[in-house]
Amino acid sequence: MRNESAHHHPDLQSVLAYLLSSGGKRIRPTVALLTGGMLGAEEDPLLYLAAAVELLHTATLVHDDLIDGALLRRGIPTLNARWSPAATVLAGDYIFARAAVSAASTNSVDLMRVFSETLATIVSGEITQLFTSRGTASREDYYRRIYAKTASLFQTSAYCAALLSPVDEPVMDAMKTFGYNLGMAFQIVDDILDFTGEQATVGKPVASDLRMGLVTLPAIYYAERHPDDADMQLVLNGVYDDEVAMPRLIDSIRESGAVQQAMDEAREFVARGLEVISGLPENAEHAALEDLAAYIVDREV
Amino acid sequence: MRNESAHHHPDLQSVLAYLLSSGGKRIRPTVALLTGGMLGAEEDPLLYLAAAVELLHTATLVHDDLIDGALLRRGIPTLNARWSPAATVLAGDYIFARAAVSAASTNSVDLMRVFSETLATIVSGEITQLFTSRGTASREDYYRRIYAKTASLFQTSAYCAALLSPVDEPVMDAMKTFGYNLGMAFQIVDDILDFTGEQATVGKPVASDLRMGLVTLPAIYYAERHPDDADMQLVLNGVYDDEVAMPRLIDSIRESGAVQQAMDEAREFVARGLEVISGLPENAEHAALEDLAAYIVDREV
Repeated sequence: MRNESAHHHPDLQSVLAYLLSSGGKRIRPTVALLTGGMLGAEEDPLLYLAAAVELLHTATLVHDDLIDGALLRRGIPTLNARWSPAATVLAGDYIFARAAVSAASTNSVDLMRVFSETLATIVSGEITQLFTSRGTASREDYYRRIYAKTASLFQTSAYCAALLSPVDEPVMDAMKTFGYNLGMAFQIVDDILDFTGEQATVGKPVASDLRMGLVTLPAIYYAERHPDDADMQLVLNGVYDDEVAMPRLIDSIRESGAVQQAMDEAREFVARGLEVISGLPENAEHAALEDLAAYIVDREV
Repeated sequence: MRNESAHHHPDLQSVLAYLLSSGGKRIRPTVALLTGGMLGAEEDPLLYLAAAVELLHTATLVHDDLIDGALLRRGIPTLNARWSPAATVLAGDYIFARAAVSAASTNSVDLMRVFSETLATIVSGEITQLFTSRGTASREDYYRRIYAKTASLFQTSAYCAALLSPVDEPVMDAMKTFGYNLGMAFQIVDDILDFTGEQATVGKPVASDLRMGLVTLPAIYYAERHPDDADMQLVLNGVYDDEVAMPRLIDSIRESGAVQQAMDEAREFVARGLEVISGLPENAEHAALEDLAAYIVDREV
């Protein structure tokens, strides 16, 4: 990924180096690499896909952080905390462009189409979130939101790796379903960790989503079980800055069965994902995908 | 282009409708359509290319206007004057995604690669401009800048249309050269009109570029001919808000031969462009491309 920008503005190289050195779990490209490895994809196109997926993800994060005004990501300063907003917009655009170049290097026009549509899905989801009033607790909205935000790119990572492999359409569809389920589980667990993690570990306040009026699965389950909870009603009515009610509500959710219920659901998604790949080649990559799926629901942060 | 966004957020459809109804010359898709028409490209992929080119151009304008804080474009309010900066970033991203989907619909992986690299070139050019100190008067820098900003997408419009046509590589290369030369001429004339146009017609103050320290071809020629002009020296030393020197300098440039010299150069670019296509099929589209080239140097605004 770093070599790709060699002929452009030197500041762009330093930006890419900075972003790529900042770590992150690189879970999306790992899904692509393991899927392609399991199914016998050629190495070069697969590497281009993996780079494209990670670059696309990085570009959306760069613009997201700008929009949210976030100053830290993965514990280090975000681009917009170091650069001007103008430069951050352009840096994100540039990373989109590099992602597209990398996707084109796979030489698969089907892959390019899926990849472009995924970007449209992710951005459309963000715009919907921007314009939707906060404080709604519909599970349907929640699934739609985390599909656009996270599961769509997991799905694309696995599906596009299958597109690059010598396999039939049913296997491609299976990998699509696998990626989708893994991604849904991943985001649900992220949303659970927002409740259960401690500020020192996560690097942001407990229940930071809820504090901004973003109702995720644990809170949705809690609201369903406690329809008369006054603190929850406050949030659902758009008040989420009450300094007494909010911490009390967060404690209630943390101590309720809602967190466990959400975790059970994440495990169901993982189980569905593993089921669809159960008939596929039993090789090292298959085993690693199973490990990855287990990691997604068992990780601490 | 409007149909493409049907399944996404309704606000996105209204944004696209708004942007696409706001006019503009649509000169880039016209270059693509006429080139493809001249060379016998299939209609459907050619239309997808034309849409992709215009969408890419529109997306870069949306982010540009945000960065410049521009409130008017083509005489009507820009997106960022009506929407929040956050929504404007995302709207631009979404239009990039639609451009990529449209490009993928041509089913040409070569086209996708050229298209993605063009986006990288445009954005890299903008970043360079953002980080380069203003008030330099090198022709080399100027050519590099207008290539990235304008000529690269003209080049891609003509070249990609040739990629979709039943022609050999020499013809593709000729169309690339044609698009390049047309684009260089187009931007030089734009920069001339910034000096010669009247505020009422152009919708912005005369010499708006120079007033922001951006030295374009007429000013470069003027500086070369009058190396000791004190007002020009002021600009080259980074002072371009002097309320006496700036209007005086603008008048000097307008009254000098520098404008004509720049126009001569634009005509040379057009001539070089027309020369490379002189051996190609003499059909209606070829004639229309010649008219378009003439229009580029003869237009008023």
